[in-house]
Amino acid sequence: MAMPELNEYPVPEGKPAFGPDGRKIIYDEDGKPCRTCNSLLNFRMATAKEIPKGSKSASSSVGTIAATSMAALASKPVAKDCPPDVEELGRSTWTFLHSVAAMYPEHPTDDQQQELKTFMVIFSKIYPCWFCAKGFQKFMKKNEPKVTNQEEFGRWLCDAHNAVNEKLGKPKFDCNLWKKRWKDGWDDGRCD
Amino acid sequence: MAMPELNEYPVPEGKPAFGPDGRKIIYDEDGKPCRTCNSLLNFRMATAKEIPKGSKSASSSVGTIAATSMAALASKPVAKDCPPDVEELGRSTWTFLHSVAAMYPEHPTDDQQQELKTFMVIFSKIYPCWFCAKGFQKFMKKNEPKVTNQEEFGRWLCDAHNAVNEKLGKPKFDCNLWKKRWKDGWDDGRCD
Repeated sequence: MAMPELNEYPVPEGKPAFGPDGRKIIYDEDGKPCRTCNSLLNFRMATAKEIPKGSKSASSSVGTIAATSMAALASKPVAKDCPPDVEELGRSTWTFLHSVAAMYPEHPTDDQQQELKTFMVIFSKIYPCWFCAKGFQKFMKKNEPKVTNQEEFGRWLCDAHNAVNEKLGKPKFDCNLWKKRWKDGWDDGRCD
Repeated sequence: MAMPELNEYPVPEGKPAFGPDGRKIIYDEDGKPCRTCNSLLNFRMATAKEIPKGSKSASSSVGTIAATSMAALASKPVAKDCPPDVEELGRSTWTFLHSVAAMYPEHPTDDQQQELKTFMVIFSKIYPCWFCAKGFQKFMKKNEPKVTNQEEFGRWLCDAHNAVNEKLGKPKFDCNLWKKRWKDGWDDGRCD
């Protein structure tokens, strides 16, 4: 069992701590793997019912799943009309948030600034991956949302996205370019 | 020029009123086509710079765009790192919102209920397609968000989504099934 960290429930007895992609599997309070907190593959592995007895496990970290079963899980087609996994949810939500930044006024009123701040605070509480939400709340405690104008907010959000990218081992984005990525498109015309 | 409707700015002189998909093209206050309010194809058509003179127009509604140019616009590859069009923004945002519903508590506190209501009100103001946002505000005036519990909110949101689907001529979703689509997955196991 993995050492429980802050914001994590312990790994239930007999359940895998890590998924095939090397990431921790996040379990809910009731011991069930959290669909919106895990990748589809990790979720599938943690919820797999049939585990052939006596078969060799694919790796020590995944414990009781046989290599053949895991290959089957990994190659299982993904239906389009299923609840999103943590990656689809993340992509979708960043698309929404960066677009909010792109359309935020260059000279917002005091009311608009207050509303955006309130929106982000509530967002950090209700984001459907509770595990990610806790991380975002932590980020926001140290980095209050900058809502004075479009450019400030766009950069703040880009920094927030990069903080998550860093945690996940993903490349960082050059925040000088946030407006080309999310508002105006690139100079080479590929978005026109 | 199309008759300007409530919530729409007039179509600028010499610019198309409708796109190749038959939908109205939405222009911003400054007369530029709104990227997040239009499909990529319609946006491309409304922003197309080179219009061959004397060439036959593809249809009367698209005015000055030649059929050959339009085919070129339609077949132009879409780069992945571009600002979303109205469809990608819509898909992403519904994914986020339905997931919020899926993770909303079955027995929320008064504070949680108030926060979700506030969140939805601000959401309806800052949604990055201003044209869609106005429509959503109108829907919310007639249909106040139901936030008493997960089931109520999930159904309210599903109804809101269907109201948009209806406007766009898309099929309606059976809201009795919202939880399978957005929370638990389907009984046939295709989401497991």
